[in-house]
Amino acid sequence: MILIGERINAGFSDVEQALEEKDPEEIRSLARRQTEAGADYLDINMGAVSKDPDDMVWLVETVQETVDTPLSIDSQRADIIEPALEACKSNPLINSTTAQDEKLGNLLPLAVEHDASIIGITSGKEGAPQDVNGRLEHAAKIFTKANEYGLDVDNLFIDPVAMPLKFMQEQASNLLKSISQISNISDPPPHISLGISNMSSDATEKSLINRTFLVMAMAVGLDAAICNVFDDKLIKSVATAEMIMNEGIYNDSFLETYRMS
Amino acid sequence: MILIGERINAGFSDVEQALEEKDPEEIRSLARRQTEAGADYLDINMGAVSKDPDDMVWLVETVQETVDTPLSIDSQRADIIEPALEACKSNPLINSTTAQDEKLGNLLPLAVEHDASIIGITSGKEGAPQDVNGRLEHAAKIFTKANEYGLDVDNLFIDPVAMPLKFMQEQASNLLKSISQISNISDPPPHISLGISNMSSDATEKSLINRTFLVMAMAVGLDAAICNVFDDKLIKSVATAEMIMNEGIYNDSFLETYRMS
Repeated sequence: MILIGERINAGFSDVEQALEEKDPEEIRSLARRQTEAGADYLDINMGAVSKDPDDMVWLVETVQETVDTPLSIDSQRADIIEPALEACKSNPLINSTTAQDEKLGNLLPLAVEHDASIIGITSGKEGAPQDVNGRLEHAAKIFTKANEYGLDVDNLFIDPVAMPLKFMQEQASNLLKSISQISNISDPPPHISLGISNMSSDATEKSLINRTFLVMAMAVGLDAAICNVFDDKLIKSVATAEMIMNEGIYNDSFLETYRMS
Repeated sequence: MILIGERINAGFSDVEQALEEKDPEEIRSLARRQTEAGADYLDINMGAVSKDPDDMVWLVETVQETVDTPLSIDSQRADIIEPALEACKSNPLINSTTAQDEKLGNLLPLAVEHDASIIGITSGKEGAPQDVNGRLEHAAKIFTKANEYGLDVDNLFIDPVAMPLKFMQEQASNLLKSISQISNISDPPPHISLGISNMSSDATEKSLINRTFLVMAMAVGLDAAICNVFDDKLIKSVATAEMIMNEGIYNDSFLETYRMS
């Protein structure tokens, strides 16, 4: 399972403040702690705080002063993404393109040029469809375009869009069906990723909903997640699901040794 | 989700003692508490303690003095099952037949005659196969024979056999694939059931393994489980998975109101 730590996001007030004041300590701390918690990538998101490419580069460089964990550049703007990719020391992830022609045409070549991975979300001009077929059409388009641009399938992540259980309950089962079908789009399939925390927006039992949904999604083909790696119960659930999926060799201490490499 | 409470089983020392001494109190208490915890059926298993049909009838009658929860008669012997079925006040479940001709020929007619449901485990003369195809062959045979004997598909449960993660780790993913494929055997499909506690035999993290596997299995089609309904974390996971599968209407208090009808 590929875990993408969600926490360096200026939607959180500590990161907003650190970004505004160019104070590196909180950023470094979040980078180090998420890495220790097992993150395979660290997502870097400036939210609504800044649209300045230099700020993204500052975040990338600040993180890289502390850890060498690969980064997920969370933006859909090429002018922000490109300098950030150039600043990355190890192969990054672009988070994200939609299925719109213009975005695909701008961002897929960037991914190929920088040997980056890229997340394609199943969303188009009209927004993100809620049904299975709509998600699959966008997934197929992203997959086809990625091939045309010469992106290695192992560098492609499809994100079929998690929607809040509280407000759109029927979406969760659609999403599970979509994951199952996207995992059959090719052999080997692209990675399939989700922003897990969306699932529990405004719900009371956030952690329980997130971890339950995450392992259910793993059972049908999800192999990547943007999530809160500080949620110990979530990480334990993922560790157990990996044992169940026969990824890693079971031993009675699997929780203690999980991601301690 | 159909939950079958596993606890009235003479493999547990309290039940063994109660059965030997014909002391009804512990049996009644387990029946009442499992029902309150949300069990849809109560499994009644004499283990190795007794092969006396009268003892099974005593257990059935003792439980029915306290609750009217349907019972799961846990035996493969027609001489034990038949009088127990006759003693049952509401439609029971026979747990179980294998895919062997003789068992199917003895037990399927009993189920039809008593309007009982029956669990067919994917096991034959050579034992329970570990691969997906072996499980499917047995499932198809049980399904076909059940049809021939006139059993309603809604009364058929297929159990593709949970094996301990600790000792047969690769079996868990085989099992998930088997569940997914058995759920496509017909439309509507038969119920698919498992003895969940087998998954964590001799493991350190029993509850975590059980609940993680259970919701993963629900994602691919499991709709029944013999399990420890006293495991509060397991029940909360099932409640959450049911919300995710759009079974029941989400509200922020779903954990508090779950199975409180």
